[in-house]
Amino acid sequence: MIKTLQELADHLGGHIIGDPSVSIGGLGTLDTAQEGQITFLANPKYAYKVKTTRATAVILPPEADPCGHNAIVVASPSLAFAKLLTLFSAKPRIAKGIMDGAFVDKGAVIGEEATVYPGTFVADGVRIGNRVTLYPNVTLYEGVVLGDDVTLHAGVCVREGCRLGNRVTVHNGTVIGSDGFGYAPDGQAWFKIPQIGIVIIDDDVEIGANTTVDRAAIEATRIGRGTKIDNLVQVAHNCVIGEDCIIVAQAGIAGSARLGNHVTLGGQVAIVDHIVIGDNAMISGQSGVFGSVAPGEVLSGTPAIPHHARLKSAAVFPHLPEMRRSIARMGNRLTKIEEKLETPMGTPSPNAAAPHYVSD
Amino acid sequence: MIKTLQELADHLGGHIIGDPSVSIGGLGTLDTAQEGQITFLANPKYAYKVKTTRATAVILPPEADPCGHNAIVVASPSLAFAKLLTLFSAKPRIAKGIMDGAFVDKGAVIGEEATVYPGTFVADGVRIGNRVTLYPNVTLYEGVVLGDDVTLHAGVCVREGCRLGNRVTVHNGTVIGSDGFGYAPDGQAWFKIPQIGIVIIDDDVEIGANTTVDRAAIEATRIGRGTKIDNLVQVAHNCVIGEDCIIVAQAGIAGSARLGNHVTLGGQVAIVDHIVIGDNAMISGQSGVFGSVAPGEVLSGTPAIPHHARLKSAAVFPHLPEMRRSIARMGNRLTKIEEKLETPMGTPSPNAAAPHYVSD
Amino acid sequence: MIKTLQELADHLGGHIIGDPSVSIGGLGTLDTAQEGQITFLANPKYAYKVKTTRATAVILPPEADPCGHNAIVVASPSLAFAKLLTLFSAKPRIAKGIMDGAFVDKGAVIGEEATVYPGTFVADGVRIGNRVTLYPNVTLYEGVVLGDDVTLHAGVCVREGCRLGNRVTVHNGTVIGSDGFGYAPDGQAWFKIPQIGIVIIDDDVEIGANTTVDRAAIEATRIGRGTKIDNLVQVAHNCVIGEDCIIVAQAGIAGSARLGNHVTLGGQVAIVDHIVIGDNAMISGQSGVFGSVAPGEVLSGTPAIPHHARLKSAAVFPHLPEMRRSIARMGNRLTKIEEKLETPMGTPSPNAAAPHYVSD
Repeated sequence: MIKTLQELADHLGGHIIGDPSVSIGGLGTLDTAQEGQITFLANPKYAYKVKTTRATAVILPPEADPCGHNAIVVASPSLAFAKLLTLFSAKPRIAKGIMDGAFVDKGAVIGEEATVYPGTFVADGVRIGNRVTLYPNVTLYEGVVLGDDVTLHAGVCVREGCRLGNRVTVHNGTVIGSDGFGYAPDGQAWFKIPQIGIVIIDDDVEIGANTTVDRAAIEATRIGRGTKIDNLVQVAHNCVIGEDCIIVAQAGIAGSARLGNHVTLGGQVAIVDHIVIGDNAMISGQSGVFGSVAPGEVLSGTPAIPHHARLKSAAVFPHLPEMRRSIARMGNRLTKIEEKLETPMGTPSPNAAAPHYVSD
Repeated sequence: MIKTLQELADHLGGHIIGDPSVSIGGLGTLDTAQEGQITFLANPKYAYKVKTTRATAVILPPEADPCGHNAIVVASPSLAFAKLLTLFSAKPRIAKGIMDGAFVDKGAVIGEEATVYPGTFVADGVRIGNRVTLYPNVTLYEGVVLGDDVTLHAGVCVREGCRLGNRVTVHNGTVIGSDGFGYAPDGQAWFKIPQIGIVIIDDDVEIGANTTVDRAAIEATRIGRGTKIDNLVQVAHNCVIGEDCIIVAQAGIAGSARLGNHVTLGGQVAIVDHIVIGDNAMISGQSGVFGSVAPGEVLSGTPAIPHHARLKSAAVFPHLPEMRRSIARMGNRLTKIEEKLETPMGTPSPNAAAPHYVSD
Repeated sequence: MIKTLQELADHLGGHIIGDPSVSIGGLGTLDTAQEGQITFLANPKYAYKVKTTRATAVILPPEADPCGHNAIVVASPSLAFAKLLTLFSAKPRIAKGIMDGAFVDKGAVIGEEATVYPGTFVADGVRIGNRVTLYPNVTLYEGVVLGDDVTLHAGVCVREGCRLGNRVTVHNGTVIGSDGFGYAPDGQAWFKIPQIGIVIIDDDVEIGANTTVDRAAIEATRIGRGTKIDNLVQVAHNCVIGEDCIIVAQAGIAGSARLGNHVTLGGQVAIVDHIVIGDNAMISGQSGVFGSVAPGEVLSGTPAIPHHARLKSAAVFPHLPEMRRSIARMGNRLTKIEEKLETPMGTPSPNAAAPHYVSD
């Protein structure tokens, strides 16, 4: 695919410095791009590389120096680069139909232009929209509903009655709708609480590989529009996750927790059950959040506290042994002074009479 | 299904307040239940909702006020509700046999009333009990043994020679019997230690989705009767887990660790190798346990300490910077006092002569 | 299989004490080995068991007492035992070919002596070496390349264009080449950054079950020769992992992090993005590493600090409440002393005039 710089600028909504008619046939980094390609400057600390890049054009933020290159100026060069990467890497989707070796129940309804690979099983009562791709060895249980333009990668399982919106993508091995983890104590043993709810995933959600989203005990576990979930994440029963959240790998969200919109959870974060995380809150990696979080808060650590305070306390942590010794020594110094002040000046102090701190 | 209140009370072993002949056709929460349904009060803080529920009957703990409703009084309303939910939601199991597209080796033995879905592979030497359900794309390696009434969801793998008892349920994508992680250093490289043991899972165990239970190096990794394991949990080789344990999502148990009976591990807990966790111990979420734990202990944090002490220390943690500054200031104050007491009163102190603490 | 002690000593490069002609037909532990078997002493604290073992021969470290047994003396008895376990447990591999129910695209090339089980899908453009075993329900996307002697267990997925070297083993449910987690903010929503790179896995790598290795945004995520990765590990896009590393279960490595050679990551460790972990560094379980690590360092905790210092500070942690109280009390004692020294000796101190610390 070859585009003129003008066409790319129009696509990005940017303005051009230099020659709008030059032809661009691909992308590269500042270091690797060749003549005929376009590159981008995202981080100002690499501005010095603009001068020496061999690229025919550079995507720049406002006020950056093009160093004599053709350029497209946009508010966010990394967003612009992602858009061009999408443009240049996109391949036309060709529907392959229901392939030999796929098992589709007669009671399932599949829309137009589907691709269903061998080894995939679609149960009775499943309803699937248009332009859906089901890679090999996907399993859709009874009553599952998929919107249009859904892509389920090999090994994905969607359990009984769960619903996915339009343009949802789920990567390999992820499980949607396994039973929530609920048992009532019955003397020594545990009695299983039936998990009769479902999972509802809204439009434009993307979920990584080997993640698990449990079905609700009753009603629904919900993931809001545009939310992106990484690999190996646990979403427990009855969680409600808002829109446009970012949930990084190996995070775990316990039952009935609620996340607002645009919440960010770092990798390996734990959110306890039944709490509320406000809009735009950010939880730093490996933190454990044991109570509700106000909108916009930035927390870290276990238990999570404001990130700023956490950093300061963490910096003191390695000094704890020396602090403890200081306290012990100061206690001894205080005792000596107190003894001195109790007795007339110049008299020997009776050491044994006063309590002493012992250092470890 | 319609039952009288008397029939439900008999099923639960509870006693009735009000009219035992009323008909109950379903369940709901205090807020959502309709006439003809039964609801329950589990948490005393919602007792005020009993008055206004539209339910025909309420399951109550002893001494709660029925507010004029029909009621069944039981020791544990949430257990009773789980039992009724099971009663009302249970569907009769209809065996589908070995379906087209399932691959069952001639050398495998499958009991009566089995359901084996397409895409499932059963190897030579596998022995399977009665009323077993194998969802699509399950893989049973050679010599696997399954008891009666086992349910393996789509994508489950059970490796060579592993044995599951009766009424075991395993959710999607879980792997039973992958090789334990064992290598011996051989100069720079690692020499694989063959993992020739198996996994033995006792009756009534339930395991969530995408969990991994490794086979033993020699002998067996064991999971005791009635234990419930959540999603994305790691159980390493040669672990021995007792009966009726609860292991929450993303916990990890290292090699040869032993858990007693009725142990609870919170989400993301780590248990190091070769330690023993006593009966009824509870480890709070995200804790790291680096030494053996006595029966009944309640621990938290990394390294885990008694939960009570942990909470107190964690509350002090944000004050560390201020504590360090206090120590520095007090050191300076002490030095001044000591100088004053060393020298005759009234004489200016020679500041430079004494050591000084420096605050950060 | 029966071997003479001499044959085993030759295989191990060890020297014999006793009779080189005795026959050995198997292995056991010091406790369980029978006549005709060989056992080993790895941990000196079990040396007393050598005396009473029923084994015909014992593998010993230099200078251990054979207590009258036949013995093979080697530098590392556990390595020697692993080698003998391999020798005695190895079964000859018999190629089964492409079995009925496997789906291999006409455009795929498969080497000699392959075994491809039912339910496995091999896409167009895949190239596979000799003696490869693909268990059931494996999915190889377009353009995947596998070397010789590769074993992929049931449920493994290898995504578009990824490459695995010779003698690579991947356990069940692991995903190689799922999309990296990359989005650019586009106002409120997230714009997906296409992940057009691949994963390259070098020779002799072994990867556990349900692990995820994401494809690079551009170029390649790389895992070096001989590295061993456990279950449920996350390797993010563009990571570069060196040779002979050990990465224990549930560890997570964020985007573009680089590990040197022979690095050890304990279970549940988190490595943040874009940092470098030097050769031979060891990170203890559950640690969070937020900055680059020099070669050979041994770190622990979150944020990770030298393990030695961590242990000392962690030992002080439970004393924080008592330290805080001590600081408060010492502040009060200091204030009293200062008051006394300000006023003529013997005069009552005006308590209310000085600031007081308050203990919690």
